[in-house]
Amino acid sequence: MVTAVRMLHKGSQSEHGSSKITTVSESNVQLVQSLSRGLAVIRAFDAQHPRQTLAQVAEATGLPRATTRRFLHTLIAEGYAQSDGSLFWLTPHTLNLGFSYLSSLGLPDIAQPHLEALSHALNESCSVSVLDGPDVIYVARAAANRIMSVNITIGTRFPAYATSMGRVLLAGLPANELDTYLAAVPLEPITDQTITDPAALRQELAHVAKQGYCIVDQELEAGLRSVACPIRNAEDQTIAAINVSTRAAAYTAEELVRKLLPQLNDTALAITRDVTTTNL
Amino acid sequence: MVTAVRMLHKGSQSEHGSSKITTVSESNVQLVQSLSRGLAVIRAFDAQHPRQTLAQVAEATGLPRATTRRFLHTLIAEGYAQSDGSLFWLTPHTLNLGFSYLSSLGLPDIAQPHLEALSHALNESCSVSVLDGPDVIYVARAAANRIMSVNITIGTRFPAYATSMGRVLLAGLPANELDTYLAAVPLEPITDQTITDPAALRQELAHVAKQGYCIVDQELEAGLRSVACPIRNAEDQTIAAINVSTRAAAYTAEELVRKLLPQLNDTALAITRDVTTTNL
Repeated sequence: MVTAVRMLHKGSQSEHGSSKITTVSESNVQLVQSLSRGLAVIRAFDAQHPRQTLAQVAEATGLPRATTRRFLHTLIAEGYAQSDGSLFWLTPHTLNLGFSYLSSLGLPDIAQPHLEALSHALNESCSVSVLDGPDVIYVARAAANRIMSVNITIGTRFPAYATSMGRVLLAGLPANELDTYLAAVPLEPITDQTITDPAALRQELAHVAKQGYCIVDQELEAGLRSVACPIRNAEDQTIAAINVSTRAAAYTAEELVRKLLPQLNDTALAITRDVTTTNL
Repeated sequence: MVTAVRMLHKGSQSEHGSSKITTVSESNVQLVQSLSRGLAVIRAFDAQHPRQTLAQVAEATGLPRATTRRFLHTLIAEGYAQSDGSLFWLTPHTLNLGFSYLSSLGLPDIAQPHLEALSHALNESCSVSVLDGPDVIYVARAAANRIMSVNITIGTRFPAYATSMGRVLLAGLPANELDTYLAAVPLEPITDQTITDPAALRQELAHVAKQGYCIVDQELEAGLRSVACPIRNAEDQTIAAINVSTRAAAYTAEELVRKLLPQLNDTALAITRDVTTTNL
């Protein structure tokens, strides 16, 4: 696996800002600064900032206004953004970029019918996620029909160390990658239950690896308990995790294991079987 | 609304290929060719081509190999791709790009709980989509638990003219935009039921606009019937569509109207109410 190294040489801003190649990658290939910056412009838009002026996007990305303007107009020309002359916003065309990944992953298509069946059988929300840097990111989900439902969609991310799926994924990492993770990621207390001691987390991950599932009890949010299992590939590597999340009022941790884990585990094995058959 | 114009001046390839600014937009802003090309590299990956060699990506995008290599290594440096030295693939980080749009749209968050409730009530799959060029693109979905389920996820696209949601969205377009659509998009027969005559489609869209819903009966796929309603904003513009899709064996077109449309319509109005309240 090639480890990405960002910005080995960070060049000075050129007059036109957008076109200079000023960075080289670990493998000594010149990088394209304009692409990095353009992707940062796309990511400047979110739920809190769906429509922004040029000045706002420039401030969010730290790019000069003239540069930002060229990036925004390139996105418009390619169909990824629109503008009314003062405000800019992304179009649904942008979804194709994320969809390139989901589609190339294959896993969501395989997992979705299993997730739907599990969610209906348990009447609880079920999800599949993968590791992305320090976070888990949701790639498939089947939500239970609830008046109070957790606001999670495909693309939602949470810190891996505080979630059941994240711990299953961390427990499946090679030792050196886990060391890198623990050295890089500060363990913040998200609730007063969150494990924040690296040694304690390491011990818990060893326990998760051994027992083959993970329970997280209100460490991400008070009132939320979840249980997760690994999804593996043909080489027995953990490539994703599946979980059931429940209101703490509905299930004790012991009941999660007794009432929900058996079907969750069966579903994880069924997805693993499909994954290995299709050779993902 | 700014109409995007692609590549008014397509410049010659520079020696280094990736950095020249050779295009100007309609508003006379210099475009950033490197961004356009980098986004094309991302889109070169899909379900059929999840892992590709440098040569394959170069062929798919029509870019020189040296240029392609720089784009791929930039994506690696930014965390959007990985490589084992010979093959390249996208990482989950790419999902953030599409998620920028979904998150900035706001609509999926608003629609999802309504969709889940409707899908459970009707025991059928329900979806919300928006127009993206000639297609509808799914932005939210709640799938029914079925042994045979339609393989649709967020980001899936279909030709607008052959789908119930697409026709609801086309019926809501201003006259000049509908003219542009009909002039640009060839109406291919997807099944032998598909309307392929522009005049007939125009008549059907007028009918849909008048009655406030649309039924499509096996025009997209044999055995598939669906009914859709518009979701509107505070200015009464159609901004999205919601549908229920069913197996033709389960419901006649008449039964779709009698048994499913009332609840679908209630849900569309409830989402419209939430949308106008939050001022999307």
